[in-house]
Amino acid sequence: MLKLYAMQSSGNCYKVRLLLAKLGLPFTLVDVDLLRGENRTPEFLMKNPEGRVPLLELPGGRFLAESGAILAYLAEGSPLLPDERFARAEVLRWMFFEQHSHEPAIAAARFWLKLVRGGRELRTHDVDRWQEEGYAALGVMERHLARRPFFVDGRLTIADIALYAHTHVAEEGEFDLTGFPAVRGWLARVAAAPGHVGMDWRPDASLGSDTGAGDATLVNAS
Amino acid sequence: MLKLYAMQSSGNCYKVRLLLAKLGLPFTLVDVDLLRGENRTPEFLMKNPEGRVPLLELPGGRFLAESGAILAYLAEGSPLLPDERFARAEVLRWMFFEQHSHEPAIAAARFWLKLVRGGRELRTHDVDRWQEEGYAALGVMERHLARRPFFVDGRLTIADIALYAHTHVAEEGEFDLTGFPAVRGWLARVAAAPGHVGMDWRPDASLGSDTGAGDATLVNAS
Repeated sequence: MLKLYAMQSSGNCYKVRLLLAKLGLPFTLVDVDLLRGENRTPEFLMKNPEGRVPLLELPGGRFLAESGAILAYLAEGSPLLPDERFARAEVLRWMFFEQHSHEPAIAAARFWLKLVRGGRELRTHDVDRWQEEGYAALGVMERHLARRPFFVDGRLTIADIALYAHTHVAEEGEFDLTGFPAVRGWLARVAAAPGHVGMDWRPDASLGSDTGAGDATLVNAS
Repeated sequence: MLKLYAMQSSGNCYKVRLLLAKLGLPFTLVDVDLLRGENRTPEFLMKNPEGRVPLLELPGGRFLAESGAILAYLAEGSPLLPDERFARAEVLRWMFFEQHSHEPAIAAARFWLKLVRGGRELRTHDVDRWQEEGYAALGVMERHLARRPFFVDGRLTIADIALYAHTHVAEEGEFDLTGFPAVRGWLARVAAAPGHVGMDWRPDASLGSDTGAGDATLVNAS
């Protein structure tokens, strides 16, 4: 069975749970709480020297890191990753946008301002940058979605899953989505699609426990 | 014929030129100088509303943005992007790492400290962060390459091309590679591979001109 090492409150980890739920793939969830340093134990660093989650363990014992790579691996052959060469490239285009220009601002703001106790004081110099870069990313999404129901090909793909995960909780990072009606409409369409599960969803097979807040020193969710 | 909109001194644009050269694909190069704001003209924003380069125009008139997506699109079916599902996912894993954890530090440092006149003063608060995040990324690469000739599958792939582009000029962003012997060995192997071209290489079909330094306000190479 697939095994997913993840933190419940991480948007990058939620992407993978959401996709696994949609695909109906059974998996074991192993909680790794970054806020308690559980990603820095020798045991976990043997699995992923970078100390990041999500991390997917395949039945043969191989490990795959990076949420975007995990999504692409799992979605292969499903309708959520188009076969057609250009559409497939456009899916990746939005997934790279998410990891380069969206997540580093929108997810980091939520992590430090909402999840980490005392995070605002620790990262006070970054708040303006997160706001500027995060709103720029939301503007790119708004323009693109103004004339489209989903990011690529008129249908739900892993590009939407990747971008939904942090956008739907952007307000927890103090982003106001009022001025982004196309983004809000798209969020509702993603949430209404078949097989959708929320961020708190867990599979039947779960190991370990997870907490919502703690005293962290590092962002290690990728 | 393929058309590539690019800035000669951008590492993200170099990735695409290097891959096109290796694949022997003819293309027209159109210079877009970010340092002169040529990516902010109405004409260019019609092509890519984000105003970023590289941007690939396909013969039918469709556009593809994001260097990673362009690499994956062009390398499809070639030995530079494995067919096997797990190896392909590992290639993406390193390409996402590059765009999320490597380029935002190592390329940004080079851009502001080397290419933009007065950039150090404009971005003085970011220098420590670039150094910390950039050396962390180099550390991840060093550990991985200590036992491997290339990033994935023992052979050159687009993951190497993606990571080579900014790493081989990391010293221009004031990173010292002395303590990273495995990275230096890998840089030499990539440069020695068949069909390699340097950052200054241009195809026969080029339009426009490009300069090395100017007064920019935005990093827009993705």
